[in-house]
Amino acid sequence: MENIRVLEIKEDIASRNNEQAKSIRAELKEKKICFLNIMSSPGSGKTTLIVNLVNRLKDRYRIGVIEADIDSAVDAYTVAEKTGVKTIQIHTGGACHLTCQMSYDSLCALGVDDLDLVILENIGNLVCPAEFDTGATANLVILSVPEGDDKPLKYPLMFEVASAVAVTKKDVLPAFDFSIESAEKNVRMRKPDAPVFFVSAATGEGMDCLVSYVEGEIAKVAG
Amino acid sequence: MENIRVLEIKEDIASRNNEQAKSIRAELKEKKICFLNIMSSPGSGKTTLIVNLVNRLKDRYRIGVIEADIDSAVDAYTVAEKTGVKTIQIHTGGACHLTCQMSYDSLCALGVDDLDLVILENIGNLVCPAEFDTGATANLVILSVPEGDDKPLKYPLMFEVASAVAVTKKDVLPAFDFSIESAEKNVRMRKPDAPVFFVSAATGEGMDCLVSYVEGEIAKVAG
Repeated sequence: MENIRVLEIKEDIASRNNEQAKSIRAELKEKKICFLNIMSSPGSGKTTLIVNLVNRLKDRYRIGVIEADIDSAVDAYTVAEKTGVKTIQIHTGGACHLTCQMSYDSLCALGVDDLDLVILENIGNLVCPAEFDTGATANLVILSVPEGDDKPLKYPLMFEVASAVAVTKKDVLPAFDFSIESAEKNVRMRKPDAPVFFVSAATGEGMDCLVSYVEGEIAKVAG
Repeated sequence: MENIRVLEIKEDIASRNNEQAKSIRAELKEKKICFLNIMSSPGSGKTTLIVNLVNRLKDRYRIGVIEADIDSAVDAYTVAEKTGVKTIQIHTGGACHLTCQMSYDSLCALGVDDLDLVILENIGNLVCPAEFDTGATANLVILSVPEGDDKPLKYPLMFEVASAVAVTKKDVLPAFDFSIESAEKNVRMRKPDAPVFFVSAATGEGMDCLVSYVEGEIAKVAG
């Protein structure tokens, strides 16, 4: 039937998003700005980790933070208060992920030309944010100990797009049935070459290595 | 411009889904089958809670379980092995939620005519599953202690569609900065009349009240 035309909306949205993401990434690299997109489940400790990372890096680098949520601004207030770096809260109005356009608008609203590092806390969701390239120069995926070591089995794409994985809340390991070996094996199944860090933002354990990783990402972009 | 037509795809999908959900719910009530849709973040303890609930109810009711995941069948194996009730695993093929059609196909595949209670473990995601009515007769939303008491602020729709909320992993409360009062207040902001249960599937604390709630839901449908 020649009078029927099939419009692949999802693919079209995705390919347009990916094209725009590439151009944002190119512009950020041109300006030597590292853009770190942090993704995870709700409540895995993204905000606490960001506060900890920023406080360990802010004396040496100029940093800004973008907090994305469907509703509420509690995370932006926490980050602004506990780190002192410039921070904005964006609301997605119900949307389960950030498109590249939302990410670009956020970078413009924050003002990034004077920064070395921009950290984006994406919507807490292990599914949808993985499908939309934000234009970030690196994706840090967080898995917290209470969630269980099997998450990479159930949410494959999120771990496939990870540049690195941080397993958080290591301090509560004794209270949960969580195997560090299984977690690492399950991450490797999805992304063989991603570094995996086991950390506790509460006690500081393992944070030095994660800080070194982020410094490496900043150095990569700074060339 | 009369030659332009705007197609509201999202609204159309949602309204068709909702119509179909109503007809599934009517059919289930006709057959006196309670259909409990359990939703939460990844790793909040849905499967452990289901195993516990089923083992406390299976001597008095005929139960079936539907496990939904993007990938892997670990949860279905766990439930089948630890409860002995009939269980199926469905894979969404990357999708972040179940549509009503997926839910209906799952009910048909499981075979529900000889059951009093069907439990659906939805995809671990606090956003998208809330937008799609599965045809369930009740929605139980789970929030685990390690996720934090602020989740109803950030994920409003999920708590608005809750028939009841279970706060899980109460046994690890001392290890986390989680206020039972704040959690309850935040849930009430989204859904004033939903009962809130504080439970630990690991120790059994609070499970009696949750079991009574589920029995009430079964009785409602059985009329």
